[in-house]
Amino acid sequence: MFELGVVYRNIQRADGDVAAKLGTLGTATVHEAMGRVGLLKPYMRPIYAGARAHGTAVTVLLQPGDNWMLHVAAEQIQPGDIVIAGVTADCTDGYFGDLLATSFKARGAQGLIIDAGVRDVSVLTEMQFPVWSKAISAKGTVKATLGSVNIPVVCAGAQVNPGDVVVADEDGVVVVPAASAQKVLDKAAAREANEGEKRAKLASGVLGLDMYSMREPLRQAGLRYID
Amino acid sequence: MFELGVVYRNIQRADGDVAAKLGTLGTATVHEAMGRVGLLKPYMRPIYAGARAHGTAVTVLLQPGDNWMLHVAAEQIQPGDIVIAGVTADCTDGYFGDLLATSFKARGAQGLIIDAGVRDVSVLTEMQFPVWSKAISAKGTVKATLGSVNIPVVCAGAQVNPGDVVVADEDGVVVVPAASAQKVLDKAAAREANEGEKRAKLASGVLGLDMYSMREPLRQAGLRYID
Amino acid sequence: MFELGVVYRNIQRADGDVAAKLGTLGTATVHEAMGRVGLLKPYMRPIYAGARAHGTAVTVLLQPGDNWMLHVAAEQIQPGDIVIAGVTADCTDGYFGDLLATSFKARGAQGLIIDAGVRDVSVLTEMQFPVWSKAISAKGTVKATLGSVNIPVVCAGAQVNPGDVVVADEDGVVVVPAASAQKVLDKAAAREANEGEKRAKLASGVLGLDMYSMREPLRQAGLRYID
Amino acid sequence: MFELGVVYRNIQRADGDVAAKLGTLGTATVHEAMGRVGLLKPYMRPIYAGARAHGTAVTVLLQPGDNWMLHVAAEQIQPGDIVIAGVTADCTDGYFGDLLATSFKARGAQGLIIDAGVRDVSVLTEMQFPVWSKAISAKGTVKATLGSVNIPVVCAGAQVNPGDVVVADEDGVVVVPAASAQKVLDKAAAREANEGEKRAKLASGVLGLDMYSMREPLRQAGLRYID
Amino acid sequence: MFELGVVYRNIQRADGDVAAKLGTLGTATVHEAMGRVGLLKPYMRPIYAGARAHGTAVTVLLQPGDNWMLHVAAEQIQPGDIVIAGVTADCTDGYFGDLLATSFKARGAQGLIIDAGVRDVSVLTEMQFPVWSKAISAKGTVKATLGSVNIPVVCAGAQVNPGDVVVADEDGVVVVPAASAQKVLDKAAAREANEGEKRAKLASGVLGLDMYSMREPLRQAGLRYID
Amino acid sequence: MFELGVVYRNIQRADGDVAAKLGTLGTATVHEAMGRVGLLKPYMRPIYAGARAHGTAVTVLLQPGDNWMLHVAAEQIQPGDIVIAGVTADCTDGYFGDLLATSFKARGAQGLIIDAGVRDVSVLTEMQFPVWSKAISAKGTVKATLGSVNIPVVCAGAQVNPGDVVVADEDGVVVVPAASAQKVLDKAAAREANEGEKRAKLASGVLGLDMYSMREPLRQAGLRYID
Repeated sequence: MFELGVVYRNIQRADGDVAAKLGTLGTATVHEAMGRVGLLKPYMRPIYAGARAHGTAVTVLLQPGDNWMLHVAAEQIQPGDIVIAGVTADCTDGYFGDLLATSFKARGAQGLIIDAGVRDVSVLTEMQFPVWSKAISAKGTVKATLGSVNIPVVCAGAQVNPGDVVVADEDGVVVVPAASAQKVLDKAAAREANEGEKRAKLASGVLGLDMYSMREPLRQAGLRYID
Repeated sequence: MFELGVVYRNIQRADGDVAAKLGTLGTATVHEAMGRVGLLKPYMRPIYAGARAHGTAVTVLLQPGDNWMLHVAAEQIQPGDIVIAGVTADCTDGYFGDLLATSFKARGAQGLIIDAGVRDVSVLTEMQFPVWSKAISAKGTVKATLGSVNIPVVCAGAQVNPGDVVVADEDGVVVVPAASAQKVLDKAAAREANEGEKRAKLASGVLGLDMYSMREPLRQAGLRYID
Repeated sequence: MFELGVVYRNIQRADGDVAAKLGTLGTATVHEAMGRVGLLKPYMRPIYAGARAHGTAVTVLLQPGDNWMLHVAAEQIQPGDIVIAGVTADCTDGYFGDLLATSFKARGAQGLIIDAGVRDVSVLTEMQFPVWSKAISAKGTVKATLGSVNIPVVCAGAQVNPGDVVVADEDGVVVVPAASAQKVLDKAAAREANEGEKRAKLASGVLGLDMYSMREPLRQAGLRYID
Repeated sequence: MFELGVVYRNIQRADGDVAAKLGTLGTATVHEAMGRVGLLKPYMRPIYAGARAHGTAVTVLLQPGDNWMLHVAAEQIQPGDIVIAGVTADCTDGYFGDLLATSFKARGAQGLIIDAGVRDVSVLTEMQFPVWSKAISAKGTVKATLGSVNIPVVCAGAQVNPGDVVVADEDGVVVVPAASAQKVLDKAAAREANEGEKRAKLASGVLGLDMYSMREPLRQAGLRYID
Repeated sequence: MFELGVVYRNIQRADGDVAAKLGTLGTATVHEAMGRVGLLKPYMRPIYAGARAHGTAVTVLLQPGDNWMLHVAAEQIQPGDIVIAGVTADCTDGYFGDLLATSFKARGAQGLIIDAGVRDVSVLTEMQFPVWSKAISAKGTVKATLGSVNIPVVCAGAQVNPGDVVVADEDGVVVVPAASAQKVLDKAAAREANEGEKRAKLASGVLGLDMYSMREPLRQAGLRYID
Repeated sequence: MFELGVVYRNIQRADGDVAAKLGTLGTATVHEAMGRVGLLKPYMRPIYAGARAHGTAVTVLLQPGDNWMLHVAAEQIQPGDIVIAGVTADCTDGYFGDLLATSFKARGAQGLIIDAGVRDVSVLTEMQFPVWSKAISAKGTVKATLGSVNIPVVCAGAQVNPGDVVVADEDGVVVVPAASAQKVLDKAAAREANEGEKRAKLASGVLGLDMYSMREPLRQAGLRYID
């Protein structure tokens, strides 16, 4: 059961080096290595072009229009963490702005993923504090109702446990369970290894039809060419 | 990590009597007793007026435009179960129609909750087989890519584990973790016990302001009356 | 300026007879008589088929996820009123259910228009208490932050002042300013007077092209017929 | 090129008997027989439960907020036709109400498919004049800018040519090109022929896994069962 | 009542210096000072990064797909004004492009806020003429139906009166009633005054929990820490 | 009838010079010259600021979550082509990334228009390979079900035939039928010719009201000025 009004202080974080390597590989490669699961919905967008981040998840469950638990979460941040927040109902309010970003950054946070709104985006851009959100909104929030910190949450359609690896870039946000992080990294790295060679072939004019041996399965599926 | 291509055959189902009692109380009361968590997003709507269902969850993870795993799930249904399906990406295709409904019903399913589309809704209505979905669409699906059955899934923003209690009615769909079902039932029943008396008072003209003793907190919050 | 934390007790209500006559004419006719302004956005839908209501507006400004002010509003309802509520940010929570409906009904309310969610819709349907909302959701709300009652509000894109006439049916919801209610009624009634005759002509096979003398303006606009 | 300001008076209609038989089979069966193309987007919904219609297409291209061409289209309707209208830009206005419905009905129209809004839905329901639309809205429209009648149009994501067969029911709306109508009917009828037997088997408890021989392909795709 | 076909030539503009100071403070600070009301919906986005504007409102009520009244509005612009336009129904058409922008700029307009679409955005970006809109669309509009200029309008969910202060930046758009502009400025400036000190504290690692004395209210609300 | 599983190898491409000139004029001007038809819905956005492209259409019909036919399409690309892809159902998956872009570019493609998602946008931006899409998503796709190449398709609400001219820029995407390309170019060029003079007049303070002689038609429509 989702627990409300609870803060877990001791969480098992995924290995920081593994998180860093997954971050370098990027969301598309990691998501493929995951078997195409673990991706947040594509409405989650970075607030500035070129944003990239990775880290271990400090999770937050928020109430609509209420950012109290982000202040509670700040204390639980360790260097290398990324904060990821779900809300109990759809909300676009600006839960997070430059003051909280200053505090998060001072604690060592690598960024914020929030299934709601954010504000002060021009200052956040200057600070280069990356945020992925579903909205940008000047609307502030109250501090009246408890949520939780470091419980399992759903953020933008994806399940996140505290300590999971979060990788975010311009293609979106993907969550890698801490227990699978090394295995996913191995697969992702293997996948990446072939990409350079493939790219060179395709650049030289070789078709994917040939490089991936698709012609025969396409024929078997019934594809017909008409002149 | 989400496992793909896996069917768990032995799941721990919540107690059927508890599920039935929660079903009688309805989603609004159960959701309050849960502490206002566990609700699917409100875009999930029943396909006919008056639909109600409850049961223990058989969970399904589907791929976009592919209903193969619903056929796999059918075999795992036991009487009293309700099937609840998430998809790895947003999709409105009609994954489920009258033939699958006939099969699900023969296995004892109480209904379907699917974060995608459904079709044959006029026949399903005649059969009184309740479905909550995000779309109605005549579009059929392929059977080409594996998902999973009876793993934890996210459906319409809510986390569901196999065996959890699912309660659905015209107000939406709520998921009660199996381990908390009895406790939630106790709270919900207590909440319900007071409702009749409250309703009678309000019907007689007593104001909620007085019945809930709100006047003083409102005054303290600064509410001003102007004539 | 929107005033927060304020309840106006004495409002100037439009004439009840005028409101009743506008209600009989229905939203499409009234909206035309208004010059095609004053309509709420079409995402506002009645919770049951055949719902119709009209009344003088008691306005409410709500905070996201917080229904405190609906309890405050209940006391301001007089027989013949209809409650119309905007929210300071988009929210689909179920602000209103059967208990509040019982209270509103006891006070003489004719219905509720709310730019947010509602719950207990099966009971509300039995009670025949009509509600127009943008969502149906089992999710409850807190009582923590003040809004206002009987100030001008924006509801679903339309400006409403306390005491205005509100007409709602299956085609939507239209707001008629109190000061213009009689004039709008006159125009609407005149418009309605011709409808029977027009309908009979069209039913007999006369074309709108001829009945409305459209052929010449169409020709002047350049319409060409090709055989 | 889309032609504006043009009305084609002589169109080649699909065979009425074929249209009628396709209408009996329903959209899900017809859509499958089409190879899963030709379906309008699922946001197109009937205005009342149980609505069904079929006919040969009279197509209309409308301008946003302007229903002039629906009056022009009325004259082109022959008994057995169904009017299907696209708009040059997204619009939810109520282009069509009871007067136009009276006229369309007098001309023999079987219904209206409109990628915009409709009004007077309670009267249309009484008249049992079926409409599939993307919105219901009391907002009226002007008569100022030309569109066209009986040119190829895109309606809710589907291409429609004048004279095509249109089949609509509670599952949505599907368009069958006139030239393919007989072939689609043959396929759809063949598909339908097997349904009764399949349904009986599934109702007796036979699983789709066995009836469709899915176990081996699932095993080959790598499906694992875990006890 | 909304008046159609009317242009008010003499409007009471808020003080330009106050508008300028509010503009410097930005939407988030101004919106807080307003008590968290007056904000346009967050779907209103600037057409280029870094856009900022403020001014006194020239209001426009437009018809769907019709930009006639923007030409009428141009004449009413005085240096320091910002044009803010609502539409009588949802529309994404490109009402405004480089020619109108040239005209508006020549009149002294500081920008445009439009609850519809805009086009020529690459030229507008070169001109650095800022626009906040709900869509970007190449689609042009007709000039056929009257709206109004300088009447009260609803734009993206917010009420605007002619002469109000409009502040817009990357966080959104906020409207400050002319009569309250000085009072809001005072509050906003006071709020801003504390921000530097707060930011410094947070940057040094002080937690919001301590700086805002939240620990006790959190404990009273029931927050539990679990190790 | 939409043909599935078909690739047309010989298509009639519009003249490349005409396409280039239309590309220079841009979507807003071309769309006006088309009579305000042929525009894709405005949710289609470029993946980077300043993107512009034009070319002759290679069309693709895709299945949801399946990018097989993009590989098939690559072989059909000739220098100067632009690939434009519709999907048989709404889907936001990332169908296209840096490897396919490398291949498309090697074949001479000028860009991609896809009514679905795209990924690797930071690499695509570095490559300056322009894509207009409805989503950005790291989610990959399967290669299991046939669509078609070079048949007529609907993409984001617009009909496209193979060989048509496609013009795309920051204002959106417009499709010009091959047979009308020269005529549309003539009209667009004529329209453009006047723009410089108009712009100069407006910049000097002349009002559109006077330049377009709108005062009299506005007066006749009933516009009233109130001081």
